Parts: sequence; C-alpha cells; structure tokens
Amino acid sequence: MKFLDQLQSAQSRHQSMLCVGLDPDLAKLPGNMQGKPEAIFDFCAAIVDATHDLVMAFKPQIAYFAGCGAESQLERLMQHMKKVAPHVPIILDAKRGDIGATAQQYAKEAFDRYGADAVTLSPFMGFDTIEPYLAYPDKGVFLLCRTSNPGGSDLQARRLADIEGQPMLYEHLAQLANGPWNTNGQLGLVVGATFPQEIERVRQLAPHLPLLIPGVGAQGGDAKATVKAGWGPNSPIIVNSSRAILYASSGADFAEKARAAALEVRELLEASKSV
Amino acid sequence: MKFLDQLQSAQSRHQSMLCVGLDPDLAKLPGNMQGKPEAIFDFCAAIVDATHDLVMAFKPQIAYFAGCGAESQLERLMQHMKKVAPHVPIILDAKRGDIGATAQQYAKEAFDRYGADAVTLSPFMGFDTIEPYLAYPDKGVFLLCRTSNPGGSDLQARRLADIEGQPMLYEHLAQLANGPWNTNGQLGLVVGATFPQEIERVRQLAPHLPLLIPGVGAQGGDAKATVKAGWGPNSPIIVNSSRAILYASSGADFAEKARAAALEVRELLEASKSV
Repeated sequence: MKFLDQLQSAQSRHQSMLCVGLDPDLAKLPGNMQGKPEAIFDFCAAIVDATHDLVMAFKPQIAYFAGCGAESQLERLMQHMKKVAPHVPIILDAKRGDIGATAQQYAKEAFDRYGADAVTLSPFMGFDTIEPYLAYPDKGVFLLCRTSNPGGSDLQARRLADIEGQPMLYEHLAQLANGPWNTNGQLGLVVGATFPQEIERVRQLAPHLPLLIPGVGAQGGDAKATVKAGWGPNSPIIVNSSRAILYASSGADFAEKARAAALEVRELLEASKSV
Repeated sequence: MKFLDQLQSAQSRHQSMLCVGLDPDLAKLPGNMQGKPEAIFDFCAAIVDATHDLVMAFKPQIAYFAGCGAESQLERLMQHMKKVAPHVPIILDAKRGDIGATAQQYAKEAFDRYGADAVTLSPFMGFDTIEPYLAYPDKGVFLLCRTSNPGGSDLQARRLADIEGQPMLYEHLAQLANGPWNTNGQLGLVVGATFPQEIERVRQLAPHLPLLIPGVGAQGGDAKATVKAGWGPNSPIIVNSSRAILYASSGADFAEKARAAALEVRELLEASKSV
C-alpha cells in the first residue's frame, strides 16, 4: 500500500491525528530502567502496546538508539510494531541528507534494514539527494521545511532574492515539495507547532501534502491552533508528541499513564477539528 | 589536543593534504570480499594500513556501515585507526542535523561511541543544532556549506534578500562559521571541489577555517585548481578522495594499488602548492 493511503487508513481507523514519538532517553526511563541501554526495547515496546490503537503513526528517533549502540533493539522494535500494529505506519526520524550514492545507503538503512514506511530528510543538499528514497515507490519522505527550534529561523526564514515574490526559504521548500520535487506523490513536510501561522502558510502553499508536526506538548505547541492551521478533510496532519507521553510517569505505571496522556492528546486534536 | 592542532600536526608530519574517505560499498569491494558485509572491517583496515603515513585525515562515511548493519565493524575500525595511526585525525562523515536534545545523542554517537575527532553536520536547522557538538571542546565540526552534487545549487546558491550584499546562502554560511557561530574555534566548512571559484569565494569569507573538500578524483574535481583556490600556510584544506583510492584495483592487490593512488594524489596536491 502506498504510504499516503496507509496514513489515511490509520487516521480513520483510529480516529486519530496523533503520532507517538519514540525517543528513549536513558536518563528519563522510568523506575529501574533508568540509565540502562538494554531496557530500551522493553520500554518502547510497552509504550507501543499501550498506545497503538490511539495513534495514526509511530516515529522512532534513530539518534536515541545510535547514541548508545542500540541498533539491534531498534530492529526488534520495528518488528514488534509491525506485529502488534500492522496498520500503523512507522516514520523513521533520521533527517539524513547526502549525495546520491550515500543516500542510497541511508535509504537501504531506513527501508530495507529497519522496514520503515517513511523517513524524515533534510533538503539542504537539493533534489538529487532526495531521489534515491523516492525510488521506493510505496515509501513516504518528509522533508524538513520549517522547524521551531530556537535556530530554526537562522536559515529557514531568510527571504530568497532570486525567486519571484521573495519567499522565505521554507516557503520555497513548500513550493518545491508541492510541485517539481513531488514526482510520485511521496512527499510530506515537517513543520513545527510553535508558530501556527507558519503551518497555515505552508498549508496554503501545499494544500494536500501530509504535514508532520512535532512540538505539541513538551515543546509548547498548541494542539487546537495546530489543527485549525493545518488540518482539512483532504489535508492530513500527523501531530507528534514524544516526551509528554513517554515520560508521563517515572514510575511502574508509565505505560498506563502514557496511554492516558495519548488519549488526552488524541481527544484534544479530534475535538479541535470542529472548532 | 585540539582538533585544529591535530590537523596541522598530521599535515606537516605526513606532508599531506589528502584525506582518504572510507566508503565501503559492498558492490565494489575487491575480489572475494564483494557483497560480503562481514568483510567491511578487513577491507577498510587494509586501506588504512596501506595509506596512513600518506594522509592528513581519514573520513569514514557512516552511511555505508549503517546501510548493512555494520556498526560494530565501524567501532572496530575506529579503534584500529587510533592504534595504527594515532596522529591521524578521524572525521566521521554523518551530516547530522537535529534539535538540541537529539543532537546531544548524535554527538554521543560520534564522539563517545565511535571516538571520532570531528564530524560533518548540516546547518539547515540553525545554530542551536550545532551547539551540542561544540560542547566537546577538543572536537572539530565541519558544516556543509557548498556541495557540488547536481542539486547543490537548489538552495545553497540562492541569494538572501534580507542580508546586506545579498550573499548566496553558502556565502552567508561561510560568514556565520567564520564569525558568530565559531564560538570556540572548532568549526570548518565542507566545500565541493567541482567549482574552484566557489572554494576561492569561501576562502575570502573564511580565511583560516579548515576546508574539507570532497570531490577530487571520481567526482571530477581538479586537484591543482583546488589547492590554488583554497590552500595557504595558515589556511588548511583537507582534500578527500574515496573511490579513486579505495577501488583503484578490484583484485587482490587492492591495498597496494590504493597506496599508489594515494601517493599520486598526495604528490599532485603538494606540487600544486608552489604553482
């Protein structure tokens, strides 16, 4: 099934725009898992088991596995997700960006080795660095567009003198992803939740692309404003929450509390549709 | 020792501006190593053993290890390089770029887990995504600036309307890396070899930053023009060659032929200094 269909099907099956980000930070793992790299799989699998019927996607962040040499646990986790939640697409958050031959290796890593359904990429090096991922026709690719970290404006908010209308860099990227770069309907965009007016702007430029929106919850984004700015019946948004769900409790009840937190965010997002 | 001192010391010790890129492509491994992921360490170690007295740096490309699950071989290779060539700095080519908390994990991966002396990064998400790497005061950080792949111009060659003089994006990056972003003298820039006039331009804007220059050899860059454009007694350049050295022979003599190729490039680069 094509990634976009997978997304839409998970969204309507679970009535959810929520994506749970799997960022297993050793220093924050609950109870006696804390500080133990070997507990990463068990922690993430418990979160997956507790939330998979509430989400439209999972998003493991590969850095948290690579930082402590836990690639084999990520492999197991991917298999576990495919088994317990075969209808929930998995977006591997990797933000890769490199020349064609190297991008082919990273595409192998994401799609063949880990079996991800989609990947996040950096567009800094241009279109030919995206192409090797598009060679996997059923897979999705989310390009960084507008990130809401403190330095997000350093480059992304610069106006381009040599493009008509002098769009900001992120606006130009939205235009490229909505047009010439989207050769096979596989592209989506990453847009932070901190500034809803920028989600709105990206939505104007790319009316139907799936938008992956991190930053609701711990990073301060407002769920209601996010849905209002980005969502429409044919305009999917995938709202990611990581820390607020993963670390809802530091005790033995972490999975139960994660479910409660996920339920709450899902309801808030769904309720925002009709506002 | 600080990374910049390490670089200069290796450069003068080996009279070399050459960096050998370790990109173990399974499809190109020589003889009966071909297609065998388990041969990656042996192949790379043989290249290191045959060339380490001729180079100023090694640059393993992490994608080639990640693509086939060979992280443990990369760990072994890093240890091997530290043992046989303790004076040769190792630049881990990873081109990471992510928010602060995630960047901390990638910094752990590059510096703690693999023991790299420097790393390549993408600047797309801004300064706060670079800072976690700068917290390791002896390590170096090469920011992508101007890449010479086909899509390198898509964003990097755009003129910025809201910066004085309307510099191109890559020129602005060179200014940032030479000024406000270089808080502790750890930054360098990645500039492709295909267009020497762009190396010259970056050198004007960042007179003394180390420039990592891939693309000499297989990617078509001209060694003589590269040295002329970028090198000076207090302006180090690190000229990377990967495929032309690694795959100089597809037979059992691959290491010997790699040494011959490395010698040739080193001599060509050194001879270009006086031109």
